[in-house]
Amino acid sequence: MIDGLEFIERFEQHFPLELAEEGDPVGLHIGTLNKKVQRIMITLDVRPEVVAEAIDKKIDLLIAKHPPIFRPIKNLSTDNPQQKMYGDCLKHDIAVYAAHTNMDIVPDGLNDWFCELLGITDTGYITKTHEINGISYGIGRIGNLATPVALTDFIQEVKDTFHLDGLRLISPTIEKMIQRVGICGGSGEKFYHDALAKGADVYITGDVYYHTGHEMITDGCSVIDAGHYIEELCKSKIVLLCHEWKKEYNWDVDFIESEVNTNPFIYY
Amino acid sequence: MIDGLEFIERFEQHFPLELAEEGDPVGLHIGTLNKKVQRIMITLDVRPEVVAEAIDKKIDLLIAKHPPIFRPIKNLSTDNPQQKMYGDCLKHDIAVYAAHTNMDIVPDGLNDWFCELLGITDTGYITKTHEINGISYGIGRIGNLATPVALTDFIQEVKDTFHLDGLRLISPTIEKMIQRVGICGGSGEKFYHDALAKGADVYITGDVYYHTGHEMITDGCSVIDAGHYIEELCKSKIVLLCHEWKKEYNWDVDFIESEVNTNPFIYY
Amino acid sequence: MIDGLEFIERFEQHFPLELAEEGDPVGLHIGTLNKKVQRIMITLDVRPEVVAEAIDKKIDLLIAKHPPIFRPIKNLSTDNPQQKMYGDCLKHDIAVYAAHTNMDIVPDGLNDWFCELLGITDTGYITKTHEINGISYGIGRIGNLATPVALTDFIQEVKDTFHLDGLRLISPTIEKMIQRVGICGGSGEKFYHDALAKGADVYITGDVYYHTGHEMITDGCSVIDAGHYIEELCKSKIVLLCHEWKKEYNWDVDFIESEVNTNPFIYY
Amino acid sequence: MIDGLEFIERFEQHFPLELAEEGDPVGLHIGTLNKKVQRIMITLDVRPEVVAEAIDKKIDLLIAKHPPIFRPIKNLSTDNPQQKMYGDCLKHDIAVYAAHTNMDIVPDGLNDWFCELLGITDTGYITKTHEINGISYGIGRIGNLATPVALTDFIQEVKDTFHLDGLRLISPTIEKMIQRVGICGGSGEKFYHDALAKGADVYITGDVYYHTGHEMITDGCSVIDAGHYIEELCKSKIVLLCHEWKKEYNWDVDFIESEVNTNPFIYY
Amino acid sequence: MIDGLEFIERFEQHFPLELAEEGDPVGLHIGTLNKKVQRIMITLDVRPEVVAEAIDKKIDLLIAKHPPIFRPIKNLSTDNPQQKMYGDCLKHDIAVYAAHTNMDIVPDGLNDWFCELLGITDTGYITKTHEINGISYGIGRIGNLATPVALTDFIQEVKDTFHLDGLRLISPTIEKMIQRVGICGGSGEKFYHDALAKGADVYITGDVYYHTGHEMITDGCSVIDAGHYIEELCKSKIVLLCHEWKKEYNWDVDFIESEVNTNPFIYY
Amino acid sequence: MIDGLEFIERFEQHFPLELAEEGDPVGLHIGTLNKKVQRIMITLDVRPEVVAEAIDKKIDLLIAKHPPIFRPIKNLSTDNPQQKMYGDCLKHDIAVYAAHTNMDIVPDGLNDWFCELLGITDTGYITKTHEINGISYGIGRIGNLATPVALTDFIQEVKDTFHLDGLRLISPTIEKMIQRVGICGGSGEKFYHDALAKGADVYITGDVYYHTGHEMITDGCSVIDAGHYIEELCKSKIVLLCHEWKKEYNWDVDFIESEVNTNPFIYY
Repeated sequence: MIDGLEFIERFEQHFPLELAEEGDPVGLHIGTLNKKVQRIMITLDVRPEVVAEAIDKKIDLLIAKHPPIFRPIKNLSTDNPQQKMYGDCLKHDIAVYAAHTNMDIVPDGLNDWFCELLGITDTGYITKTHEINGISYGIGRIGNLATPVALTDFIQEVKDTFHLDGLRLISPTIEKMIQRVGICGGSGEKFYHDALAKGADVYITGDVYYHTGHEMITDGCSVIDAGHYIEELCKSKIVLLCHEWKKEYNWDVDFIESEVNTNPFIYY
Repeated sequence: MIDGLEFIERFEQHFPLELAEEGDPVGLHIGTLNKKVQRIMITLDVRPEVVAEAIDKKIDLLIAKHPPIFRPIKNLSTDNPQQKMYGDCLKHDIAVYAAHTNMDIVPDGLNDWFCELLGITDTGYITKTHEINGISYGIGRIGNLATPVALTDFIQEVKDTFHLDGLRLISPTIEKMIQRVGICGGSGEKFYHDALAKGADVYITGDVYYHTGHEMITDGCSVIDAGHYIEELCKSKIVLLCHEWKKEYNWDVDFIESEVNTNPFIYY
Repeated sequence: MIDGLEFIERFEQHFPLELAEEGDPVGLHIGTLNKKVQRIMITLDVRPEVVAEAIDKKIDLLIAKHPPIFRPIKNLSTDNPQQKMYGDCLKHDIAVYAAHTNMDIVPDGLNDWFCELLGITDTGYITKTHEINGISYGIGRIGNLATPVALTDFIQEVKDTFHLDGLRLISPTIEKMIQRVGICGGSGEKFYHDALAKGADVYITGDVYYHTGHEMITDGCSVIDAGHYIEELCKSKIVLLCHEWKKEYNWDVDFIESEVNTNPFIYY
Repeated sequence: MIDGLEFIERFEQHFPLELAEEGDPVGLHIGTLNKKVQRIMITLDVRPEVVAEAIDKKIDLLIAKHPPIFRPIKNLSTDNPQQKMYGDCLKHDIAVYAAHTNMDIVPDGLNDWFCELLGITDTGYITKTHEINGISYGIGRIGNLATPVALTDFIQEVKDTFHLDGLRLISPTIEKMIQRVGICGGSGEKFYHDALAKGADVYITGDVYYHTGHEMITDGCSVIDAGHYIEELCKSKIVLLCHEWKKEYNWDVDFIESEVNTNPFIYY
Repeated sequence: MIDGLEFIERFEQHFPLELAEEGDPVGLHIGTLNKKVQRIMITLDVRPEVVAEAIDKKIDLLIAKHPPIFRPIKNLSTDNPQQKMYGDCLKHDIAVYAAHTNMDIVPDGLNDWFCELLGITDTGYITKTHEINGISYGIGRIGNLATPVALTDFIQEVKDTFHLDGLRLISPTIEKMIQRVGICGGSGEKFYHDALAKGADVYITGDVYYHTGHEMITDGCSVIDAGHYIEELCKSKIVLLCHEWKKEYNWDVDFIESEVNTNPFIYY
Repeated sequence: MIDGLEFIERFEQHFPLELAEEGDPVGLHIGTLNKKVQRIMITLDVRPEVVAEAIDKKIDLLIAKHPPIFRPIKNLSTDNPQQKMYGDCLKHDIAVYAAHTNMDIVPDGLNDWFCELLGITDTGYITKTHEINGISYGIGRIGNLATPVALTDFIQEVKDTFHLDGLRLISPTIEKMIQRVGICGGSGEKFYHDALAKGADVYITGDVYYHTGHEMITDGCSVIDAGHYIEELCKSKIVLLCHEWKKEYNWDVDFIESEVNTNPFIYY
């Protein structure tokens, strides 16, 4: 067992809270870190099924990419399954902690892991978000593939890499070679102008809206809407980091990836 | 045991939610009413000591005058004693329900009970708040004592009646006979103009602010700031009502008054 | 040739402006109706390719489902392709008129046409939007299939009916028989609670957001995200209506469906 | 007689306007400083009784702690006693000047005088409000008593020191030794977290609200609500300062403390 | 001498406060009506020169068309001449009362007097403002001249009628016969669309802004900007009304027209 | 023919966009600068008559002082003459560009040209608006005439200089010698306090409002309301500048002053 606060101190060294977007509710959401923890589970989303898994696996601390309390709560009626889920965490002493946009922005963060996986190198951020001690930080990443590839081949590679049963392409043309790739996990449509300005041949993100799709095409931008769920990659990468820290500090603690699939979409 | 929803249905017949002020968060705050309940406790405030009492007494449902979640909650960190209290309710399956300004406004409500206790008769409301099906409702009550009394004697009576160790008087003069009395439990300073306009010789309320005190004196209004805590009277009166319903419906359920003193002020 | 104003008068008899949602910019967007028109084209969207088609086909009036000027314009720089499109309409005397949420709400409107196509009968609206002269109007439709069908079979039928190369399912379960179906063209995710409350076994709409998808599943709601583009059905249906009016009034005018595919998404 | 502007120049050297909280209406409220003044009266509040006293004593300039025009005035109807008071000042050429939060913040200001009176030394501010030329300023003071004392004994000392007939204690416990004391004249409840964070065993302020009282107890904070009126101490202290300046500049002017008791509260 | 309240009661029978535009600060501005009054002066504006005249003429009550306290006052420093003017009224017990847009709207009000003077008959309001007990009221008046006249001749008539040394014309053409005339005293440019819609050949108002002038011409509207000061006509008309009431009620009171010219503009 | 972008680059060197007031819509309003231009017309206002002139004179680019799209456009209905005007520009490939407050603020800008014309020297700005690289910029100019002149003589000079058929004076007195003159083209009434503070004996601007006129007189400020239209001086001065650049860069391009009088006011 280790101290919850000690673990989070190391975690926040890697994912500093100050790198989150303004107003983004990162940090402790439920319970306390001021306790001993033996079992820490990493999850993309906190959903009722994930909390059930955590109870079942006797988890002490849940680390989530998406903040479970995104808007303030007006009451704690457990008739509502969303709020019952909060109560279940409290009942079973499961602390819940969120690292959200700070994980998108921080170097060696989620978007860097995406690039690594897709063979994108020489990367920089897409949209600047912070300047701290003279160093600039930003969200999204843009870089280059080793060689140009056909857009349709790259789409297949994206599907394979992220194990997707479907995705959506938005593009003025399908017949196109690409080499410079922008990527931003989550709902990154608002950053597409910056990706374009930085020379992206194609931009990968999720949750593209119909009318924004029109504007992208009119602006000559090719976008792969790979969905929000490719972010689940964060689970294995965070566990890897945690194991490094475990070794380094000789911690007696277990790190577990949530096995629940929280993708709400099935492609047909 | 009876059904929680059945109990509340009867309760809301007496204290309808629609008589609350706009935006006042009345109703279910924590847990569920969709369960069997055996032990119902009535309290003025939901404080950590009250929740401890409720746990100790195996309470299923807590009825409170003051809404425990008055402003939306941003997180459920149990490091904060206020939020830990919510978690303790959830952990011990204690539902929490609030009847607030609807209890101040409804006929045969808190302000009527005050009048009854002080011998004030021929009462009407102070400030109109609702008109429903052609019937007017309002907050506060104003009426008459049987005979005029000296203000200082009446102050003593108020202290005796509400078992107060201290109170504050705001008045242009102490030497004064009074007969017409306005009263509004809680923080009712904003209604003093209406009490004055309706002829109050003295107005009883709580939480008077220093500069409002000045304005009251300048406007020739005598006010007894008896504090917020006189409202704890509601506990015994609600239990009385509940026992009537219990008899009427032949319920198998226990009604308990909270024994915790939640008055934050001690007079010296 | 007929008078533009005469045509619109008949059009608005069927699709009254007063049935649009508040703030929805329906009506004339570009040019004038106070002119003779010979060639009227119906389109789902006004995009540069559609305007090129209109110029090519010598169109006098464009009727669109989606308002081309959705947010006020700060300037008319033709360096921007979106604004150049407005200029092209003005240059070629192409008037542009939009019927948007009034077409979603009006009886014998877009959502009714969807129901007809899918064999949904006994329909009513999902969410009430207007009450005019004692008659209620609403957006979306809900009704029943002739017999229960498996959800997966129904998905296939939706794909076939709307000629979709892909769609997304959000559902707590795939194994499910359905009979009661809600539908709302466009971005109708905000109406899913009403569809659920009215007993929808499945709800068809477009543009579902990742986190809303979670909430739908948690609330036990099955949703088919068929995309925004199924609305292109409106083109043929409006032309049909126009031809009826043409016969009725003995108009000398041509009605044309836009042949441009404005779906920004390609499924892979 | 001296020049009104000359006097205020010296006064503002000690109590600079720039140290007031943002939006606090300090400075000249009524009349003009551009005149000769012979008789200057210091008062805590500007009330009708104080203005009557000023007229009676032929005062030329009134220095007040509490700004008499706190909210902008919509009309000058003298039917309203508050506004009649403004008219009376104008009629009798009484200028009125307010030094409010700048007197709470400035070193050698009101809170320092409180500390001096109670034997609190080694003081610093409670909550930082300004940074001017690299120097920090703040509101409230916190420091230490020479030796620990019992809370109840200290309460008695506060009552004696400020000549109070009553006060209110908010505290999780009465049995407690205290040595580190925070103090903020006026309505300082919003600064209690800072007082606590700086180690206050007890915090003295005024106008504590019922529900804030609960939170103080829950947070383990002991608070003495000594009321707003202890601030009347400022009268004698300002007169003292004025006499120093009178000597220094050889002024021919009279400084007078208002003798009206403006405390709106009487404890019973 | 008569009672001030009695006078105003009769005055408000003719010029009801409820006919003022929302937020317009009509009614008592300074002093009290609860006193005996002997000398009442009518003025268009309350300016320092007018107040000097009132002091000189021992006026008890000033009736003004333009509210002297249009925006709330933050302080009563008499260094500012505007605020000194308020103080002078208070010092000399001059009550000030304003009837503003209610005088523009009420039948037999300012705009009717204008029409009478210019020989405009068959009048109605320009823009509806109130509906009270089923009767509509509005601001401005529109009606017809006995016979068509040339615009330039009418301009001369306006100058003669209102004794103007200059005025400004805004018109797409000068060569034009006019018969239907709209008029709205004060700054009435915002009502020009309504005047146009009601068939005005020319619209008389004041304070037309440069760019609004352009829009008027583009919309084909002819406007005579006769300035704000034509409203001074109200003085003699109100005095006339007052004399009627004096006779009717046998009042012992003097009514005086202010002789100060408050027109800020001289034409060159 | 020259490149439109090349011309504007030189133009913005003289009239930088960054010197405009915040929110002022300067720059390209209609069409594109990315084209060859032969004929450039300078105008004060963009009105339908000016656009007709531009079409007639085969203008490629219109430079205007007043931004034609001042508020965002909700639709492009050509039934409205204002919006038809935009369409006419687009139809005839007339680009429209506005330099507004940057022309008022920039050194060697509109207000400097006014001073030059009136013989005002030793000038500085009236109200500071920008600080860029340590250099201060401001709007309006104030300076001195060579010798004092009578106000009435100066008024005549202003009328002569700007070819005005009328103007309005606002002044506590007519009998007055003046030497120090402030000037701000357009609607500059909000800067009169600054002009006064900088010693202006008289301040020239346009569009003075009736009640502001009162305040100016009360504050002892003499103002010449010469109207907005004196700004038409900018046409000839800009053409002069353009000819310099033409020579310098050996441009093949024609510069034309609009001959349309856009003054909406005629004085009578």
